[in-house]
Amino acid sequence: MSDDFETIAIDEARALGEGLLSAAGYSKDHARTITDCVVRAQMDECHSHGLYRLISCLELIERGKVDPAATPVVEDRAPAIVRVDARRGVSLSAFEAGLPVIAEKARHCGLAALAINNCFHFSALWPEVERIADQGLVAIAVTVSHAWVAPAGGSRPVFGTNPFAFAWPRPGKHPFVFDFATSAIARGDIELHRRMKTPLPEGTAINADGKPTTDPDKAVDGAMLTFGAHKGSALSTMIELLAGPLIGDLTSAESMAFDDGAKVTPFHGELIIALDPASFMGQAARDNLKRGETLFDAIEGQGARLPSARRYRARARNTRAGVMPVRKNVLDELRLRAAKHQNKTI
Amino acid sequence: MSDDFETIAIDEARALGEGLLSAAGYSKDHARTITDCVVRAQMDECHSHGLYRLISCLELIERGKVDPAATPVVEDRAPAIVRVDARRGVSLSAFEAGLPVIAEKARHCGLAALAINNCFHFSALWPEVERIADQGLVAIAVTVSHAWVAPAGGSRPVFGTNPFAFAWPRPGKHPFVFDFATSAIARGDIELHRRMKTPLPEGTAINADGKPTTDPDKAVDGAMLTFGAHKGSALSTMIELLAGPLIGDLTSAESMAFDDGAKVTPFHGELIIALDPASFMGQAARDNLKRGETLFDAIEGQGARLPSARRYRARARNTRAGVMPVRKNVLDELRLRAAKHQNKTI
Repeated sequence: MSDDFETIAIDEARALGEGLLSAAGYSKDHARTITDCVVRAQMDECHSHGLYRLISCLELIERGKVDPAATPVVEDRAPAIVRVDARRGVSLSAFEAGLPVIAEKARHCGLAALAINNCFHFSALWPEVERIADQGLVAIAVTVSHAWVAPAGGSRPVFGTNPFAFAWPRPGKHPFVFDFATSAIARGDIELHRRMKTPLPEGTAINADGKPTTDPDKAVDGAMLTFGAHKGSALSTMIELLAGPLIGDLTSAESMAFDDGAKVTPFHGELIIALDPASFMGQAARDNLKRGETLFDAIEGQGARLPSARRYRARARNTRAGVMPVRKNVLDELRLRAAKHQNKTI
Repeated sequence: MSDDFETIAIDEARALGEGLLSAAGYSKDHARTITDCVVRAQMDECHSHGLYRLISCLELIERGKVDPAATPVVEDRAPAIVRVDARRGVSLSAFEAGLPVIAEKARHCGLAALAINNCFHFSALWPEVERIADQGLVAIAVTVSHAWVAPAGGSRPVFGTNPFAFAWPRPGKHPFVFDFATSAIARGDIELHRRMKTPLPEGTAINADGKPTTDPDKAVDGAMLTFGAHKGSALSTMIELLAGPLIGDLTSAESMAFDDGAKVTPFHGELIIALDPASFMGQAARDNLKRGETLFDAIEGQGARLPSARRYRARARNTRAGVMPVRKNVLDELRLRAAKHQNKTI
């Protein structure tokens, strides 16, 4: 472990998270769901979506955007659609409220959708699709973000970093899971290159004139690019449509307009689809899931990695140890905030 | 139009296609659905999936693989799932049989799936998702092919060229549609480079040792790559799982084993998902579809193209003219085959 990291016990991380969020005004439910999500990410050493994100959640309150006590409202829209209105709360409580309903609907109808509306969204999508796969269901999740990414052949930002996540249940194993941004680089990486004054990788951004650039400052004035040229651009368009107009929520451009310079986490919707292998295949579903294993063996058998393998290894290591590594500067800031609050309330 | 092309009237193309397929043994239904699909593609100047594919369909019979008179069997699996067993026929008649059922189920449940099993599949996916979007529904379609493509970080073929298609209905306009292979290059393009003895584009293939190559012969001994590195590889894995084990059908590796050197079009399954905007949003669906238009305007307004724009322009042009351009060598072969049959039957 590098010098930039220190470890924190799981229980201590939970107490720190829930304490900070509650003190800031989040309801018990939000404090619990947010903490659970960032602790899961931290245990997997997914640092960009770990404890660090507690700070964004505190800023959401400080900048007057979020309703920290919002109670999600579950609406049964159709036999296979459940909608959860997050009512300007963070998305995670809305997901918790919708999870049992989408699972039941998927088992009954064969597949089902969960539309989360009016939520602030800071989290990775893999914890959600993994939760669905843990119930033996296949899951797809998409959401938009802020308009930072230009379409292929264009020069101005339209799309968000628009992640696409997928999970497939594996009998007796962690599910096969991927969760990637359709942008060529993460937004946070652009900021990192700015601070470090290092060039961006080729092919990740354009300047304000639409010309390729590796200068992170010029990229911020211009736009990020999607991965995979016109194919990634097409996928990103699809995600705007599915997580925006289809479910009656904001596109990345609309989310950015809503943000209005507050620079907080995006406000928008999320679409999750769950598919039930047993409904498709009945008794044969079990054997068919095994045929999925043959595919994974063919991939791993030639030395290629499954997308979730690194996270799962970290999870196993940290679960055994009962602690997780966190960047020192993140822990310092969280503990400073906790101490400040302690002083205030004494 | 280049010298390599000549035009053929729409009615003549239909008569040629249906005549050839019927003479070869296809049932009236298969002859009609196959011809309709290749004529649509040809009208859009999508030459790789146009009249040229009639030849593959004839070879399918000549090599004893397809059942040219198979009647698809529709099975209502669950409130939101319809399965159509193509019974070793070409996929298109199975799609026709399933289309009204998936549309009705999507309207009732909010979303629905059509699983087509045991089919030979040669066609592009865009004609199918476009047909669904013409009914006001959003559509996603995936299918596998033959194992030609290596996973990111690997060296041996596991995936097919695994296309992903999407359609979004646009009031008063052709739907927004994309349909792309998750391979970095089309299989047909590799063959073209072999014949022309020209190098492949960089980053599209590896040799038998897993090293990058632009030599098309070495690529055939090695493997093609996915687009978008590990992200494209993840998507391709998802497509294997959704169109294979989820619906109880073959993966690309299994399809290739089934082919057993016959070198015909892949035999496997296809998964189509349809989502109903009206079920998600009720009365607000119409306004939300308009918000999709704002997104398209933002893309096209900066000079970027929507993925289906070129095809739609060709369609408009050829529909006005009542004729379509076809490669001369393709028309020559089709007419030669038609004449041979004529002589045989006189």
